[in-house]
Amino acid sequence: MPSSWGKIFKVSTFGESHGEAVGVVVEGVPAGIPIRLEEIQKDLNRRRPGQSNLTTPRDESDTVRVLSGVFEGKTIGSPIALIVNNQNTISKDYENLRETFRPSHADYTYQTKYGFRAHVGGGRSSVRETIARVAAGAIARMILEDDLGIKTVAWVDTIGTISSEIAEINYPKTREEVDVNEVRCPDSRAADKMRSLILEMKEAGDSVGGIIRSASYNLPPGLGDPVYDKLDGDIAKAILSIPACKGFEVGSGFSGTLLTGSTHNDEFYVEEGSGRVRTRTNNSGGLQGGISNGETLVVRAAFKPTSTIFKKQNTVNIEGKETTLEAKGRHDPCVLPRAVPIVEAAINLVLVDAYLYQRAMNPQWFQKWAKIPDYYRDLKL
Amino acid sequence: MPSSWGKIFKVSTFGESHGEAVGVVVEGVPAGIPIRLEEIQKDLNRRRPGQSNLTTPRDESDTVRVLSGVFEGKTIGSPIALIVNNQNTISKDYENLRETFRPSHADYTYQTKYGFRAHVGGGRSSVRETIARVAAGAIARMILEDDLGIKTVAWVDTIGTISSEIAEINYPKTREEVDVNEVRCPDSRAADKMRSLILEMKEAGDSVGGIIRSASYNLPPGLGDPVYDKLDGDIAKAILSIPACKGFEVGSGFSGTLLTGSTHNDEFYVEEGSGRVRTRTNNSGGLQGGISNGETLVVRAAFKPTSTIFKKQNTVNIEGKETTLEAKGRHDPCVLPRAVPIVEAAINLVLVDAYLYQRAMNPQWFQKWAKIPDYYRDLKL
Amino acid sequence: MPSSWGKIFKVSTFGESHGEAVGVVVEGVPAGIPIRLEEIQKDLNRRRPGQSNLTTPRDESDTVRVLSGVFEGKTIGSPIALIVNNQNTISKDYENLRETFRPSHADYTYQTKYGFRAHVGGGRSSVRETIARVAAGAIARMILEDDLGIKTVAWVDTIGTISSEIAEINYPKTREEVDVNEVRCPDSRAADKMRSLILEMKEAGDSVGGIIRSASYNLPPGLGDPVYDKLDGDIAKAILSIPACKGFEVGSGFSGTLLTGSTHNDEFYVEEGSGRVRTRTNNSGGLQGGISNGETLVVRAAFKPTSTIFKKQNTVNIEGKETTLEAKGRHDPCVLPRAVPIVEAAINLVLVDAYLYQRAMNPQWFQKWAKIPDYYRDLKL
Amino acid sequence: MPSSWGKIFKVSTFGESHGEAVGVVVEGVPAGIPIRLEEIQKDLNRRRPGQSNLTTPRDESDTVRVLSGVFEGKTIGSPIALIVNNQNTISKDYENLRETFRPSHADYTYQTKYGFRAHVGGGRSSVRETIARVAAGAIARMILEDDLGIKTVAWVDTIGTISSEIAEINYPKTREEVDVNEVRCPDSRAADKMRSLILEMKEAGDSVGGIIRSASYNLPPGLGDPVYDKLDGDIAKAILSIPACKGFEVGSGFSGTLLTGSTHNDEFYVEEGSGRVRTRTNNSGGLQGGISNGETLVVRAAFKPTSTIFKKQNTVNIEGKETTLEAKGRHDPCVLPRAVPIVEAAINLVLVDAYLYQRAMNPQWFQKWAKIPDYYRDLKL
Repeated sequence: MPSSWGKIFKVSTFGESHGEAVGVVVEGVPAGIPIRLEEIQKDLNRRRPGQSNLTTPRDESDTVRVLSGVFEGKTIGSPIALIVNNQNTISKDYENLRETFRPSHADYTYQTKYGFRAHVGGGRSSVRETIARVAAGAIARMILEDDLGIKTVAWVDTIGTISSEIAEINYPKTREEVDVNEVRCPDSRAADKMRSLILEMKEAGDSVGGIIRSASYNLPPGLGDPVYDKLDGDIAKAILSIPACKGFEVGSGFSGTLLTGSTHNDEFYVEEGSGRVRTRTNNSGGLQGGISNGETLVVRAAFKPTSTIFKKQNTVNIEGKETTLEAKGRHDPCVLPRAVPIVEAAINLVLVDAYLYQRAMNPQWFQKWAKIPDYYRDLKL
Repeated sequence: MPSSWGKIFKVSTFGESHGEAVGVVVEGVPAGIPIRLEEIQKDLNRRRPGQSNLTTPRDESDTVRVLSGVFEGKTIGSPIALIVNNQNTISKDYENLRETFRPSHADYTYQTKYGFRAHVGGGRSSVRETIARVAAGAIARMILEDDLGIKTVAWVDTIGTISSEIAEINYPKTREEVDVNEVRCPDSRAADKMRSLILEMKEAGDSVGGIIRSASYNLPPGLGDPVYDKLDGDIAKAILSIPACKGFEVGSGFSGTLLTGSTHNDEFYVEEGSGRVRTRTNNSGGLQGGISNGETLVVRAAFKPTSTIFKKQNTVNIEGKETTLEAKGRHDPCVLPRAVPIVEAAINLVLVDAYLYQRAMNPQWFQKWAKIPDYYRDLKL
Repeated sequence: MPSSWGKIFKVSTFGESHGEAVGVVVEGVPAGIPIRLEEIQKDLNRRRPGQSNLTTPRDESDTVRVLSGVFEGKTIGSPIALIVNNQNTISKDYENLRETFRPSHADYTYQTKYGFRAHVGGGRSSVRETIARVAAGAIARMILEDDLGIKTVAWVDTIGTISSEIAEINYPKTREEVDVNEVRCPDSRAADKMRSLILEMKEAGDSVGGIIRSASYNLPPGLGDPVYDKLDGDIAKAILSIPACKGFEVGSGFSGTLLTGSTHNDEFYVEEGSGRVRTRTNNSGGLQGGISNGETLVVRAAFKPTSTIFKKQNTVNIEGKETTLEAKGRHDPCVLPRAVPIVEAAINLVLVDAYLYQRAMNPQWFQKWAKIPDYYRDLKL
Repeated sequence: MPSSWGKIFKVSTFGESHGEAVGVVVEGVPAGIPIRLEEIQKDLNRRRPGQSNLTTPRDESDTVRVLSGVFEGKTIGSPIALIVNNQNTISKDYENLRETFRPSHADYTYQTKYGFRAHVGGGRSSVRETIARVAAGAIARMILEDDLGIKTVAWVDTIGTISSEIAEINYPKTREEVDVNEVRCPDSRAADKMRSLILEMKEAGDSVGGIIRSASYNLPPGLGDPVYDKLDGDIAKAILSIPACKGFEVGSGFSGTLLTGSTHNDEFYVEEGSGRVRTRTNNSGGLQGGISNGETLVVRAAFKPTSTIFKKQNTVNIEGKETTLEAKGRHDPCVLPRAVPIVEAAINLVLVDAYLYQRAMNPQWFQKWAKIPDYYRDLKL
């Protein structure tokens, strides 16, 4: 089962929902970077279960540990292994799933593919795998912030039929602006309605989906590759590989198909003062030809309603017989609030890899666009 | 510039719009497969420019040649190199672009990334690169059809604000059903309107976008991987790396976020007669947990209006000065009809790679789901 | 720092000598395989320090734990993470190395490459990294034995100027035949002399090198790839990446250059009884064109004398000043006996990857050459 | 059949001996580099057949053409495709090989692996594939010379039992010093004897092998990676994947096993004047822990006697019956002189990839060790 990605900043994840631990190995991290473990933990706290009454009651601290790659507080260039032990696992909740496939889950497909599976907690297909991405994504984030000043902020754009209303100029600039409520929607009026809807669904044993929007600020022009490793393609894959994601847009996305070229094109101009090349509109979403153009990178991701519901459903079992299922266990009525940091991590992992690749290709570009953090002054080459 | 992909069926493309040739090297093709060159050519003809008055007048035969990997008509396991020479290139049409960046094209971003570019015809960022994908995709298609009976058929779903109306049960089953008109929309009433809109845009020197839908039939359950190389993630990347693509959906996609879990979940049942496990609905779009479940794989891709228009636009030049641009050259007022075979190729390339990987992982699965084509009987191991 | 390899059976290692743990993540392991943890441990015991008075006194149990990928005793297709905690670390022994580079070690080169390093115990360049390879190699070995009956047995061929004398027909067939003495040389007369030499060196605070030979039995013809991923090339890389290895040979190796084509060529014949195609001689060492030919795969690897010695040496420090060094710490006077299982693991990792790739390419080959282990009967596809 | 390698400077080769062409696609080449096509051709001329009466009479000009990646004489960052058409092919010479396997060639192993092969000229297993490596290697060489001043020079060290005698201090510094005779051995007395031996073998219809030695000058410290992608491991693989290669050594290699640690270790000192850290001896061969230490990189490669001889040999055919074979066709009695540029290319391809990876990891290292060629001044980022 391929579980690794990246050309240079290579991420390899492991772990099942109810195994001993989930974790990640990251290779291709430059040496000399102070690893602020509390920042990794903070990101993990934003995705951990049990953080509010909108989420699953499976309450885990998800405490991260560093097994390798860091010496006296700084990276040494070698692979960084991070793990989080699984603690609050109640495997007996899943005994009825040994034989029965949950609708719209990966149970049936996993079984037909491999012929054998860990039926507890979704096994490897569980959203717990994203712990590994968030942990690795935190390291990516530090590098992007320190070297380029890039910040990626995601938030809940819609829940079910409830949409937020935030003009691009008012997009949140920090994660703190997003975390003002437990829904993670900075439009507080919409957030209230979303909160009610989620609780209503929870009450009903049902679930609801929605859309996450993300903005990445301060990308220099020149990140991403023109053909297959386009930033938008790589981000699409990174996000669609998050459980429950069914759709992706960059910039104008699907709605852009309703415009004509003359209304959709983003005309260039020269910004007064800075002299920087800018575009008047941002239908491109910050990317042209798969490469960043210096505008804000804007993407959206659609998440389906959580598959686990507490209503009786028709299904089949491992013997190929029809049966019914009533879910037990602990589940999110809506994955969106917890998916916000996962989406950010997915984007940061793509961006850092594109950045390191670009450093290999074009040192002049590095000199023009990157700040060299002070801590590199300690290096003794 | 990374230009290769695939774990086993590895595709590596090369070539610029106005260079000597575009081509592709495919490694990881099993030995003993008869290569029907006319089928590769047929796929290329569906994407070639000049095929109708809806497309660019750049008229190229795009004749494919095999340089390696085929001996006495059959594959020998070694890399297959396919090339198409560029013929109808008029570089002088682009002289004004040596210094000036076209809005919403890759000109500016390419220049800031590399510091040097081929300004003629979009260079490497040209849609001509997709010739390579279509050629490689044709080989993928043959393997998928011969071994598994898989057929992927894409068509134009919308153009601008004009939508087709085709229920899932009536989705076209063959490319012939799609090619009944030059728009490649099997809903002939919608196709007429689309055709008029495209011609109107062409007349006005403007352009229009739209959405392509694709259905892949006869996927056995078990293709794709549960974590990062999910089929939908890989297909999203493959499609978003096609020029002008801005959005991707699988199954219910963005509209699925409006449903609740109880209405969105696809309940399983056992099909009478065949005894096969099926789902009553297909909001999953044929994939659960990134792995095929045996239902039709349905995806949609949004393409923005062509960036090249014949109206005067504000832009900047390579010296960072504001200027205006009036396009010359030959361009499609709408890329959708020609993008249909490109989308199919993108999907087939992902599917064949997932299939070969699955053969490595699980020979029992192969015995259960694959037909061994007769031509393999000639092998002398 | 790239630390992963393999096309399908992908191995990713992590960990420093004096960090919290060393470990490995293996992806691409088929589902349904019983993981006999005691066999992994047995392999690790053969490489662990402190196993005899010929090795370093750093005494570690090197107990392996499984963090993921195994459920109810069997693989589930997901990445298998194995770790071994570091226990008997004495970092103060290395304080003098914070500033000073040990001759012929990786201290100086690591520092110039990264600008920062873990000076304790060699950090990432320590031979402790090979724990990860031996653990992963044990899984590889199980698959090769169960499916193909392949057995790889390595042993000490020479130590310093002392050579063993074992004709190809008498090569040891099992690891037990090798482990008859602590030198791991099945020629007991030579082993006695080797033992004396190693102890003499230990006494003198000096060190000694030697050559390991390995034989792999029962390879079916057809493993390996003809161009770049030749079995011998891949094995050469796998072995040369073991610390202290300076040379590699397959088959006749360097001595084959002294022969003529007519004396060196391995003529084919048909074996009576079995009807199998065989060669009369085996100068090819079991490979022709990088692909196994069904004969025993024979390779040799040269290991230099251990760089750490207890004599005073001239060297330089991190400030670029000349200085002298007297080693402290605990070190092997000769790495060969402990390198035997590492060489075996390196070969098994290459073979299993070639095998899985061949399964993807040619299912008919699989049907002809592989036994399907009984435990796969439990799979429910 | 995997035929690509490299992490950043990725090389993908294609082509069979008697197909239409052999070629290579190189991705990961920085933009703005002037491609001196005549230098690529010059390297190809050094490996082409028919260059002297010591080589095969198959006389090919091996003229290289650029299909992509170069615009107005300079690289644009996109994949560079280079091809050489096959011309002087006489397929009928091989008709007897359709059914019969040549001893010690890849015929039998290729057939058992794939079940189908191009029997003419060795097909994909032919040494003609190395045209692709030499062409790509020439681009690698330009980058290494321009940025770092690295020069790799290989020569014939032994032929059969005849050895050259050249102290390390007298190693040839340029390819011109090697090309003083057609044997490519700069020790002219030995070269004369080697020449006679090769002609004697040619006369007798027999063949002979030998050893190539290579020295790479001016490597800065810090190239290569400490664990799996060690420079020596990567070079070993690159060289062992050249047809007929059976052994590899770096530095003291096999003979180093005869020394003790105290005589083998390379003590460091500070060079007067330059202040550079140097070693007094070079048993390490320029690498410590897989990373360059600033000394000359020295490797040796053993090539077996050419398998094709003109004496009658016993063998088997595709039906598994014993038979005899008398070779026809045109063949080298000794591959060594033509293998010299292939070995150089193999090393340069490894070095350039390590260099680009190091640029990604450590921009400070780049600033310290690399010269930025003037031609990059033309870049307009």
